[in-house]
Amino acid sequence: MSTPLSDITVIDLSHVLAGPYCTMMLSDLGARVIKIERPGLGDDTRAFPPFRGSESAYFATINRGKESIALDLKNPDDRALFEQMLPKADVLVENFRPGVMERLGYGWEDLHAKYPRLIYAAVSGFGHTGPDAQKPAYDMVVQARGGVMSITGEKDREPVRVGASVGDIIAGSFLSTGVIAALYERTQTGQGRKIDVAMLDSQIAILEHAVAITGETGIPPAPSGARHPSITPFETFHAKNGLFVIAAGNDVLFAKMCEVLGLGPLLEDPRFASNAARCKHVKILKRLIETVTLARKKKHWLKRLDAAGVPCAAIQNVAEAMSDPQILARNMVVELAAPDGGKPFLAAGNPIKISGMDDTLKDARAPTLDGDRQAVLDWLSEG
Amino acid sequence: MSTPLSDITVIDLSHVLAGPYCTMMLSDLGARVIKIERPGLGDDTRAFPPFRGSESAYFATINRGKESIALDLKNPDDRALFEQMLPKADVLVENFRPGVMERLGYGWEDLHAKYPRLIYAAVSGFGHTGPDAQKPAYDMVVQARGGVMSITGEKDREPVRVGASVGDIIAGSFLSTGVIAALYERTQTGQGRKIDVAMLDSQIAILEHAVAITGETGIPPAPSGARHPSITPFETFHAKNGLFVIAAGNDVLFAKMCEVLGLGPLLEDPRFASNAARCKHVKILKRLIETVTLARKKKHWLKRLDAAGVPCAAIQNVAEAMSDPQILARNMVVELAAPDGGKPFLAAGNPIKISGMDDTLKDARAPTLDGDRQAVLDWLSEG
Repeated sequence: MSTPLSDITVIDLSHVLAGPYCTMMLSDLGARVIKIERPGLGDDTRAFPPFRGSESAYFATINRGKESIALDLKNPDDRALFEQMLPKADVLVENFRPGVMERLGYGWEDLHAKYPRLIYAAVSGFGHTGPDAQKPAYDMVVQARGGVMSITGEKDREPVRVGASVGDIIAGSFLSTGVIAALYERTQTGQGRKIDVAMLDSQIAILEHAVAITGETGIPPAPSGARHPSITPFETFHAKNGLFVIAAGNDVLFAKMCEVLGLGPLLEDPRFASNAARCKHVKILKRLIETVTLARKKKHWLKRLDAAGVPCAAIQNVAEAMSDPQILARNMVVELAAPDGGKPFLAAGNPIKISGMDDTLKDARAPTLDGDRQAVLDWLSEG
Repeated sequence: MSTPLSDITVIDLSHVLAGPYCTMMLSDLGARVIKIERPGLGDDTRAFPPFRGSESAYFATINRGKESIALDLKNPDDRALFEQMLPKADVLVENFRPGVMERLGYGWEDLHAKYPRLIYAAVSGFGHTGPDAQKPAYDMVVQARGGVMSITGEKDREPVRVGASVGDIIAGSFLSTGVIAALYERTQTGQGRKIDVAMLDSQIAILEHAVAITGETGIPPAPSGARHPSITPFETFHAKNGLFVIAAGNDVLFAKMCEVLGLGPLLEDPRFASNAARCKHVKILKRLIETVTLARKKKHWLKRLDAAGVPCAAIQNVAEAMSDPQILARNMVVELAAPDGGKPFLAAGNPIKISGMDDTLKDARAPTLDGDRQAVLDWLSEG
């Protein structure tokens, strides 16, 4: 089965998460990714739990399908090897602090002059320009500064971080879009480009509604817990055995929901006659709905709401999500071969499903440190 | 200034958010996007607040740079016009429920047979395959079902939704990656592909650490409020005038932090001698740190921590983020011309910065409904 990026080679100097997430996406789409790691220790995440023997499951899931060679870019022999790789590669990915590549002699200007076809992709906390370009960042720093935390959490309580590392991951995803756009453009121009993605910028790019509201009213939105700020009912409700979500996004769905719950009389009540009215009376409406939903288990309600076409869902924990039949049917939990040949690591699958492309990632094991040195040397000695 | 996708034309049948977010990204990278809307009403989001007169600021920010033509794909004349567009387009984007395009006679199989170069991009709640493909979904449904809500919020309290619509937005972003990968591949094969991205799949794809943990231990992680689950100190702290984040991700940064806060003696304390030890004593450590930080304002601490190279940030609301000098320096808040010629709409900028590409989006106004009909007709009549 063909993959769109099967003729592309990526040199990956990145570590931890934002850069490796980008190169994981490129690898999942068929690119060859050669990860260059520090001799001795390798990527920091090789030391991140959970472990299987000496192998990090965390490292394995993010670095699946990549090759590894250990190089010290301050050592002359290793630099010579690296410089043999550059003219044969299509893309270079790095997530150092701005200026590090320049100090190594591998800044964009220099590389572009020598290897005009090479695409240079950088992801950093704050980007390569602006007053704070040199500052260090972690996921939570950009979640805080970028405004996402301020709209996440319960009203009148302290903000919380998004449980997933969206500061890194969304930046990595945007970088993959930029890299492939540059690959596309290069088929016409023959020239590479520099892509500069900042984790902080990427947080702003996902704020969406909150930006429009703040831009028009000047008033930044507050967090709204587990409900949508401007649609009702669109939140969590208690069943007998826990929480579930009903998302009745318009009048038709509200009517269907009332029918399922035996709450037909609400449809005659002016307090609930429109979304605007329901938003005004959200608390009493929630109480009326829960009077009904508390009497039965989640499964009972989800089955009936589903049958009526009302969007709804259980709030699943990650173990439940990882055994959800729809998620499994989509190959969104994949098995990655473990280096010791034992039980495979479980990882999230490739969400970009392309007709005719195998998405099982069945050969996508993560590399041992420097484990592909010979394969890289063989590649360099080919014509 | 050149843009990577300047020779690409996208026909956009999508509405509300996931699809329009994808085509916004394609437009920001230079593609021509022709939005096909229902006659009379257009995209649902034209009726979403906040409004400027009759114009939705929300619609304007997500649909910047696109053209609009109103077509009813059940009307024979409009279908004929649509079918003139298909052979001239590179990409078709839709976010209907699976099967809708087939019933209109425009399913992937049919289109691919007639227009083999056309790339067909679909984003839906649950994808085009699997037992739940036909179910309706909204952002919050996939946040709940996909596990993200289960790890977001405070421990021992109910989970919350991520304040940004990551259910839609991340799916839209992944779709853009898939579309451009298919454009790249088409330069070699001449053939289009179908891309099928599900909002639910996309939630699994961002869980990352939580998947590795659950896969190895069987125990799904709980939410951890505003702290990182396995790094300490890496959380929010109270200053005299509010909360801020310190992310001291390793021993060196911890030592620097202690120095700034005048907490040098902690470095001698075995309870705080390693990250593992600090994680065990996280509560007492937080109390010791706040004893110091509560005495002064955020600004005081951020300035000193910054100077020492310790990652830190204020928790900014969206208004603060939108006036942050770094964010402004990166063109991450852009002005979009309003249709009435009045005060421009503010929107998040393009986070994918590409060398030589203008990222000010200065000509990227949103279309009025059917406002580009003549331009589309002119394009169809060109050779």
